[in-house]
Amino acid sequence: MHPFDDALRLTPTAEDRYAGRTTAPYGNMVGPFGGITNALMLHAAMLHPARLGDPIALTVNFAAPVADGEFEIVARPARTNRSTQHWQLETLQQGQVITTATAVFAERRVTWTDTEATMPAGLPPPQALPRMSAQNLPPWFRCYDMRVAAGGLTETLGSGHTDSLSQIWVRDEPPRPLDFASLAAICDVFAPRVYLRLGRLLPAGTVSITTYFHAGESQLREQGDRHLLGVARGLGFRNGFFDQVAEIWGQDGQLLATSTQIVYFRA
Amino acid sequence: MHPFDDALRLTPTAEDRYAGRTTAPYGNMVGPFGGITNALMLHAAMLHPARLGDPIALTVNFAAPVADGEFEIVARPARTNRSTQHWQLETLQQGQVITTATAVFAERRVTWTDTEATMPAGLPPPQALPRMSAQNLPPWFRCYDMRVAAGGLTETLGSGHTDSLSQIWVRDEPPRPLDFASLAAICDVFAPRVYLRLGRLLPAGTVSITTYFHAGESQLREQGDRHLLGVARGLGFRNGFFDQVAEIWGQDGQLLATSTQIVYFRA
Repeated sequence: MHPFDDALRLTPTAEDRYAGRTTAPYGNMVGPFGGITNALMLHAAMLHPARLGDPIALTVNFAAPVADGEFEIVARPARTNRSTQHWQLETLQQGQVITTATAVFAERRVTWTDTEATMPAGLPPPQALPRMSAQNLPPWFRCYDMRVAAGGLTETLGSGHTDSLSQIWVRDEPPRPLDFASLAAICDVFAPRVYLRLGRLLPAGTVSITTYFHAGESQLREQGDRHLLGVARGLGFRNGFFDQVAEIWGQDGQLLATSTQIVYFRA
Repeated sequence: MHPFDDALRLTPTAEDRYAGRTTAPYGNMVGPFGGITNALMLHAAMLHPARLGDPIALTVNFAAPVADGEFEIVARPARTNRSTQHWQLETLQQGQVITTATAVFAERRVTWTDTEATMPAGLPPPQALPRMSAQNLPPWFRCYDMRVAAGGLTETLGSGHTDSLSQIWVRDEPPRPLDFASLAAICDVFAPRVYLRLGRLLPAGTVSITTYFHAGESQLREQGDRHLLGVARGLGFRNGFFDQVAEIWGQDGQLLATSTQIVYFRA
């Protein structure tokens, strides 16, 4: 079993309730990698017998640190319409709320389609770049093959940079066919932008992340297990919080997801 | 009383529960303007006796059309930490969930601060531009003084445009000192980007909107009742949904809020 699927293993315990546990490969400095939490919230709704359609939007709020060990996810369809469905979710540990989330699912129809955002052109392909070393980094980095085309953290440490733009090729390691859950996790692989701006590591953590899924299931399937291009940058840093936006592109030029998060920091 | 404050009037009815009603000035084609719903969810948390600090993040999901008339907002602090607080909210009509929301509040500390996004330069000031006509438009348009610096809807109707960028000066009408709630409403004044792209009006509506508040209370107070600059554009349009991002700038160059929404459309 792929470590990602193992981390996503949820056991139904009652109506709307799932039991899960953190796994070592997706460990972060403290508790699990935020991206796996993002994926788990989505996965609980995906698994639910009342689920309608595919994910459109997901917001996950990190209310408290997730402790290593068992957790319970409550996933409730708050409203089901003809072609859309709204979810309220939360993760509990020891009866306390650790994360809250909302999600929107929908049955999509073919309509006029256009990508207005521009995929960065002229980047070296992933095969031409070295894999980022995970040495001295928390375990979850070894779950991704990341190749920095621009804006790597390592190069800015010690110096800082005037902007926080990163362009990074990323796929699951070992390779795994892309699906909604793995895409949700990938939206959170980008280092806090404040590290790049200030050129040093400092206390920082995602407070809330919102992901919009532009791709449907068949478009994800077309990606297979190839690298995706992630583009991340910060917009505003002020008084303890900053935001960072991310776009996830397929190598075929499809905009698969856009994501934004607000991050706590101390500097 | 300013019509915005009247629209925001909520009466506590029980612990975590508030009664409100839609008001005519903020009416849309059907039900109320989405921005007023965005503001109301935030306002319910702001009013709550357990509220800690200022808003940082707000996600509001439009699960069903809001009918004109009375509604109930349930606002629950799901988790209160030392300096952050997480909220779960919903609006009910006739016992049915109409909107769901989450919010994060925090006590902010002074830290390193930088605005990496760039405020558009060289735009004509609001005084040099005509006020957008609200003729033939739903009532809520008369609650805003909007002046189009670039990317107005009127100019693109009938022709469409290759991009959906708008730069619009906006303030409450009549003028009202800016606060978190009015900023939340302003984040939703931008027409669905698909109208600009295709050059026609078509069925479209916000499904979920996320707003990050970069400014604290004193920065909002500094804005007074002057026009703010809103910059909006779409990134990806596909199979019934598109996203649009917005930045709200003060005339003094402060980035006050960033917002993103996913919008249903039929075309």
